[in-house]
Amino acid sequence: MAYTGKQLTSTLGADGTLTNTIAETSFPDPAGRQVLVQMAAAPINPSDLGLLFASADTDGATYSPGQVVAAMPEAMTRASAARHGMAMPVGNEGAGTVVAAGEDPAAQALVGKRVACVPGAAYATYALCDAGMCMPLPDDVSFAEGASSFVNPMTALGFVETMRAGGFTGIVHAAAASNLGQMLVRICAEDGVPLVNIVRSQAQVDLLKGFGAEHVLDMTAPDFMPRLIDAIAETKAMIGFDPIGGGPLAGQILTAMNAAASRGQAFSRYGSSAAKKVCIYGALDTGPTILNRSFGLTWDLSGWLLTPFLAAAGADTIGRMRARVMAGLKTTFASHYKATVALDDMLGAEVVRDYNARRTGEKYLVTM
Amino acid sequence: MAYTGKQLTSTLGADGTLTNTIAETSFPDPAGRQVLVQMAAAPINPSDLGLLFASADTDGATYSPGQVVAAMPEAMTRASAARHGMAMPVGNEGAGTVVAAGEDPAAQALVGKRVACVPGAAYATYALCDAGMCMPLPDDVSFAEGASSFVNPMTALGFVETMRAGGFTGIVHAAAASNLGQMLVRICAEDGVPLVNIVRSQAQVDLLKGFGAEHVLDMTAPDFMPRLIDAIAETKAMIGFDPIGGGPLAGQILTAMNAAASRGQAFSRYGSSAAKKVCIYGALDTGPTILNRSFGLTWDLSGWLLTPFLAAAGADTIGRMRARVMAGLKTTFASHYKATVALDDMLGAEVVRDYNARRTGEKYLVTM
Repeated sequence: MAYTGKQLTSTLGADGTLTNTIAETSFPDPAGRQVLVQMAAAPINPSDLGLLFASADTDGATYSPGQVVAAMPEAMTRASAARHGMAMPVGNEGAGTVVAAGEDPAAQALVGKRVACVPGAAYATYALCDAGMCMPLPDDVSFAEGASSFVNPMTALGFVETMRAGGFTGIVHAAAASNLGQMLVRICAEDGVPLVNIVRSQAQVDLLKGFGAEHVLDMTAPDFMPRLIDAIAETKAMIGFDPIGGGPLAGQILTAMNAAASRGQAFSRYGSSAAKKVCIYGALDTGPTILNRSFGLTWDLSGWLLTPFLAAAGADTIGRMRARVMAGLKTTFASHYKATVALDDMLGAEVVRDYNARRTGEKYLVTM
Repeated sequence: MAYTGKQLTSTLGADGTLTNTIAETSFPDPAGRQVLVQMAAAPINPSDLGLLFASADTDGATYSPGQVVAAMPEAMTRASAARHGMAMPVGNEGAGTVVAAGEDPAAQALVGKRVACVPGAAYATYALCDAGMCMPLPDDVSFAEGASSFVNPMTALGFVETMRAGGFTGIVHAAAASNLGQMLVRICAEDGVPLVNIVRSQAQVDLLKGFGAEHVLDMTAPDFMPRLIDAIAETKAMIGFDPIGGGPLAGQILTAMNAAASRGQAFSRYGSSAAKKVCIYGALDTGPTILNRSFGLTWDLSGWLLTPFLAAAGADTIGRMRARVMAGLKTTFASHYKATVALDDMLGAEVVRDYNARRTGEKYLVTM
């Protein structure tokens, strides 16, 4: 039986022309461990926007029904040479109903089930997905509630795992008012992990304090650095996670860690010998990272990405993490959406410009 | 018996006044595992200049016999609060003769021996040093030849050890025309480790090629980046060591590693999943590090410092490394000096301005 429906694809030409289209297509029958999921809902995460638009000019783009054509900057076009001319499906995660399955028992067991899934092609009527990347949803969890059960929850739990694996005992989190940040506040409270939240306005301070967060610092406040040093000295939070990437913040966190760790220690021109690490896991600011290196020579700055983290963590850890997420989709791992948009309307000018602004906590949900 | 002699000390006041002085002092008797070394020669390494002058204004300083008084920038003064008012001895390493020793057999065994040593106070007539940080010099090795047997040789060997410990198989080295860089060229040739040398002029390209280096790239050449990508693709050199620190270079190396590792791979908006690492081990450029992050999310940038590396490496590894250095002081680990200056003349205006310019390969040797 052939399944047909709509699918969003993103194509970047070698000339820098980005064409995103929603079009009718037919979906292949699932084979082996694959299942075919009739998608119901899928979030638009920052990681999806990195493929959908990256740094393309959505303000100057040409919009027509079911299609947007935009210019990609030359540097990004060159850096993306491997995708030139390929129509790439988009949408990391979502939720829906399994309507067909390959012959493998793991796939067959999911037929008819409502699942959260990670197909990488979620903005579509149907999506093929490996059975191992599907989790049956509890009966009382809606598709909307289950659609964001992978990227944000596993990332937030991954931060705590990364902290423990590195021998650290507390976390600094930047852009902490995000959906992900709110989740991390709840996880750290449950696990007793000290958390220093860095946000970008007093309104976000109030928001997180309202959720019970103890340390919330406004990076635009004049006393941000001394307060950050105090908070790190108090919590011993010597690993940070930063989705902003651009600008001075990652270096400021390392500087504050060095200052906090140096308190009461003898002078060393090489800085504190305590381990200090910041992981950049996004690019909310695509500008350059600026490190003043006023933090000695014992420090580490690295990229952090969910996929290699999970590959290194292993199946047992992943299973434990996913079970915790499924049990807490209405509480610890609940997501909040600014708006819902139908797949057909996802490439309209107004809605694209709104969700592509990537403002903290203003996430969209696509419904199929 | 009391030993008296001269010692250089560096004092930073809370007001930012840096005072370096050579003055008569008396040296305490060695105790336990300590020995007292009558110093003969000591190099001025960049790491020494970091304590001696840091970013102080040596052009506008006031020079008098045996003393220089200079203004330290406010940021550096504040960052160095733990040394305010302390007269700190200077000089990481050197060579001389053991004239007294504590009661420990390890110390007693060195009495009368000519040694290379790491006292941290080498710019002096005498210096106290732990016996474990002294190595007897072979008879045919002069004090000048043995004076630089620790910092540069152990750092260069440490790079190769760090490469192996991280699972890497080739090295990128920046500012590679330095004494340290020339040593690394010889070590990598002996060990069969592929090495990509980055230098700052065509003259330095010629210099290293003359030593038999295969890959030598001038970072000021217009085709630097494509050539760096080619060299990394050919050598699989996925760990870099950068003593410059400031500017775009560390990020350029990561970008070239990502481009080289992405060749022939499917497109990933997160960059190549191959491990890529750059270690910043100095601050020849004290300006900010600028990372354009055009290298995906699998990357690591960290500080590298000899002392914690050795602490983690353990005694067996250190012993093996030091024995290799002692056997090769006239060949692999030979140092070259631009000029020799007597301790008494070390704080003169002309000589300070010359060695504090920190030009590649222009190292001074201080004689006592």
